[in-house]
Amino acid sequence: MRERNPKAKLLLGPGPSNSDPRVLRALSEPTLGHLDPDFVAIMDETTELLRYVFNTKNRLTIPISGTGSAGMETALVNSVEPGDKAIICVAGVFGERMVDVAERAGATVVRVDAPWGEPVDPAQVEKAVKANSDAKIIGIVHAETSTGVLQPLEEIARIAHEHGMRIVVDAVTSLGGVEVPVDRLNLDFVYSGTQKCLSCPPGLAPVTVNDSMAEFIKNRKTRCRSWYLDLSMIERYWGSERFYHHTAPVNMIYALNEALRIVKEEGNEARWARHRKNQKALIAGLEAMGLKLVVKPEYRLPSLTTVFIPEGVEDLKVRRRLLDEFNIEIGAGLGVFKGKIWRIGLMGTNSTKANVLWFLAALEDILAGEGAKFQKGAGLEAASRVYREE
Amino acid sequence: MRERNPKAKLLLGPGPSNSDPRVLRALSEPTLGHLDPDFVAIMDETTELLRYVFNTKNRLTIPISGTGSAGMETALVNSVEPGDKAIICVAGVFGERMVDVAERAGATVVRVDAPWGEPVDPAQVEKAVKANSDAKIIGIVHAETSTGVLQPLEEIARIAHEHGMRIVVDAVTSLGGVEVPVDRLNLDFVYSGTQKCLSCPPGLAPVTVNDSMAEFIKNRKTRCRSWYLDLSMIERYWGSERFYHHTAPVNMIYALNEALRIVKEEGNEARWARHRKNQKALIAGLEAMGLKLVVKPEYRLPSLTTVFIPEGVEDLKVRRRLLDEFNIEIGAGLGVFKGKIWRIGLMGTNSTKANVLWFLAALEDILAGEGAKFQKGAGLEAASRVYREE
Repeated sequence: MRERNPKAKLLLGPGPSNSDPRVLRALSEPTLGHLDPDFVAIMDETTELLRYVFNTKNRLTIPISGTGSAGMETALVNSVEPGDKAIICVAGVFGERMVDVAERAGATVVRVDAPWGEPVDPAQVEKAVKANSDAKIIGIVHAETSTGVLQPLEEIARIAHEHGMRIVVDAVTSLGGVEVPVDRLNLDFVYSGTQKCLSCPPGLAPVTVNDSMAEFIKNRKTRCRSWYLDLSMIERYWGSERFYHHTAPVNMIYALNEALRIVKEEGNEARWARHRKNQKALIAGLEAMGLKLVVKPEYRLPSLTTVFIPEGVEDLKVRRRLLDEFNIEIGAGLGVFKGKIWRIGLMGTNSTKANVLWFLAALEDILAGEGAKFQKGAGLEAASRVYREE
Repeated sequence: MRERNPKAKLLLGPGPSNSDPRVLRALSEPTLGHLDPDFVAIMDETTELLRYVFNTKNRLTIPISGTGSAGMETALVNSVEPGDKAIICVAGVFGERMVDVAERAGATVVRVDAPWGEPVDPAQVEKAVKANSDAKIIGIVHAETSTGVLQPLEEIARIAHEHGMRIVVDAVTSLGGVEVPVDRLNLDFVYSGTQKCLSCPPGLAPVTVNDSMAEFIKNRKTRCRSWYLDLSMIERYWGSERFYHHTAPVNMIYALNEALRIVKEEGNEARWARHRKNQKALIAGLEAMGLKLVVKPEYRLPSLTTVFIPEGVEDLKVRRRLLDEFNIEIGAGLGVFKGKIWRIGLMGTNSTKANVLWFLAALEDILAGEGAKFQKGAGLEAASRVYREE
């Protein structure tokens, strides 16, 4: 059997991003029993750190033993009972996915659609809420990874709560890179993933649940449709009871623990500012090279930038050359954006000046070779200027 | 924040077992994108190795992105449609869990119970099958981790297939330590976990599905109740389409890949023989110290031995002293066996002569201190004799 030596690449796509080297080392610490007192101490510390990153005091704040999509399923199977009505906002792949997951959880779904690349309009949500006052939840994606839109949550959270509904928020691509205002907006159920702005491998889904949602889960009339993701049981393992549910993914918890320590050392605000600044430089560079951004400035997701592929340039060829010649991965478009856009992630550890300039240099080299027209050197100069000026 | 330095312990409980050092190193290899060509090659190799360990040619043989319990849920949500009847054999915690999971998947469950510590009686299964000829599946635990029973599968598989039913098998604690006869008995759906006899951290659930079950899944009348565990979608990612479903837990796949290479290097048959031999020595030692085994010889699970706690000896105190003084973890009893038995695992890398003798020496030291009556040195001598004689 040949050697398995995965070459380190620079992952500037929609995730996974590169794992921090400290996180990779933590992964390989010796496996402990899932009820071992030393492991239990690591679990407790991890929940404490998760509260910091989620900006919350929510007691029920834990990592689910699956990837971000398992986080989405956890949110839906726990927050709706079969027959409940759910208003789901859809403006990309992950909104669509939420509809599918909610329906399988037994919900009757009312959609509020917005064009891909745009945020969901709160006025449309309000209209849907008024027409469906019996709905139990509003589901929305905070950071739509398929389009690069950061959805403002203030108004939609207000609408939900004014009408006695709970809000379920997908923060997979925002947590650790952008503020996720859990307590400030009293968001009821928020889930995320480890492999984006936390710079940890994929495999866990941090979730946080406020008291109102926890109360709902406790008093459900029906059992949760999923045994594996039933929070009423999982919380007894993560809480002081330590009641065995399933065997926790011990080494992945070490990795998450280390990833969260790194966030805390930097500080939430400094980390958000870093993500904003590096995106600003990236965008300045891309625009100076004549590329057009997909999303309006006020809705851009700092951790993931989307640009239209210049006319006459071959999508796959450019991405393949970036990977082969520069060892850089970026993301392709999905759904309606397939073949039309690129998705460039600057997430967690990867959001640095060095990566921005390296990527722009690589892209310039390739686009020049592909015959794109732009002023040579303008991209790098525009990005550098952003760093010099601040 | 204090250092997170989990001390390596000898995990001789019901799992997780110690991860092989090679597997821990693999975990910390650089994270790749989930669609990266280098990662895709590792995925393909991993499925090939899984087929070897599962003794199968089944095309649909993949690791699910969750722990062994997620494997159980995957089996049930895919193999039954709401309203289907399922015959579930129950002789311990994991049989009970299967009932719960099947009911949440929408099944009407018919139970076939057996006393804890005993196998399920095929005659009882046949009776249930005849009384419920409309049942779609028989669910059974091959290796019941709560009791240490290895369930013979031959007759039950025959009964299922003679009556046009499919058989769903839990092989969490057998795979990699005991033969799981997937193709030999044409088992329809088998799932396992990584943290037992594969000596890999918890976090993935290998599953294998035969053509009959794959056909059923393809032609279901209803959507699978779980989006995350819907095999009809997951197989499009693991198959040649590489259709994005969820982000694979990349580093855990490296670990599983390495764990499976280790199994293949040793060879299935040699590995099963090693597990049998070390259990034989362990049992000889325990019995020479006057301890009574829970399970009759012909039904003992080689990877997990269960013994009654000697009278007058305090369960928790002994386990605590083993951990504190000898750095050894063993398992407590669950359910009806709580406080009555110990569960001693010799799984994967941990199944060695050295561990058997170390454990017996530690147990003798502690039991002598707790006032148990037995002939000193008899346990070690009995175990040593097993190795000398063969």
